[in-house]
Amino acid sequence: MEAGPVEILLVEDNPDDVEMTLHALQAYNLSNRIEVVRDGAEALDFLFCSGAYAGRSNINQPKLILLDLKLPKVSGLEVLQRIKSDPRLAAVPVVILSSSAEDRDIKESYRLGVNSYIVKPVDFQRFSEAVHQLGLYWLLLNSPSPPT
Amino acid sequence: MEAGPVEILLVEDNPDDVEMTLHALQAYNLSNRIEVVRDGAEALDFLFCSGAYAGRSNINQPKLILLDLKLPKVSGLEVLQRIKSDPRLAAVPVVILSSSAEDRDIKESYRLGVNSYIVKPVDFQRFSEAVHQLGLYWLLLNSPSPPT
Repeated sequence: MEAGPVEILLVEDNPDDVEMTLHALQAYNLSNRIEVVRDGAEALDFLFCSGAYAGRSNINQPKLILLDLKLPKVSGLEVLQRIKSDPRLAAVPVVILSSSAEDRDIKESYRLGVNSYIVKPVDFQRFSEAVHQLGLYWLLLNSPSPPT
Repeated sequence: MEAGPVEILLVEDNPDDVEMTLHALQAYNLSNRIEVVRDGAEALDFLFCSGAYAGRSNINQPKLILLDLKLPKVSGLEVLQRIKSDPRLAAVPVVILSSSAEDRDIKESYRLGVNSYIVKPVDFQRFSEAVHQLGLYWLLLNSPSPPT
């Protein structure tokens, strides 16, 4: 069981990427309150407190959503659009962490209001450093919006 | 004269804060293509290529706008609102760097679509580290939206 409210929602279907991300965040003691969901539908259930997360309180939203683009069931772009068009969720920082460096994906993510877009480094060491740096930035330096 | 397109637009009226920010960015070789404007009206002139910036091309927008909130002439929140409601500018990352840690300012900034909100550390060393970290994040790790 989690000790407190979830700090990071990690939306990622690739088990290797999940493992590398968790490893990097935990190695630097950045957060042990991470919820991992494996597809876009689960992400929406978590955020909107429905389905398997019907009992969750929506008062404490995560400080950061790390969102992959290519996801089963509901795409990352659709999850992003749902978050940024909901007044209760729009202030939660969303960082796309995707292997796609295509202009189309980057442009569309910004158009939908993503806070930041990071292309996943292929190399393990650089991936780990990128996760470290983004964890430091969003969990320690950034001031999240206070709960409404 | 600048060697290439401006990478960072720094909107700050406090000369000490301007100096500390430039010092930190330059100490780490993060960018020498920084434009400093001292009030909100100048920031809008730069971004919308009007007034003193009427000759500027709007094709290359900065990779980062560092925006203070309490500014002469036009407030930081109004500058933010103008940026995020303009389809040509909305994708440019805006980070509020303000001494205000008030819930009202943070909430309103997120409501208007700020990408990130950082409270200025009072201590010089910590201010410098914060600027270093945000410079690394937005100039090297983040993928900006490609020019339209």
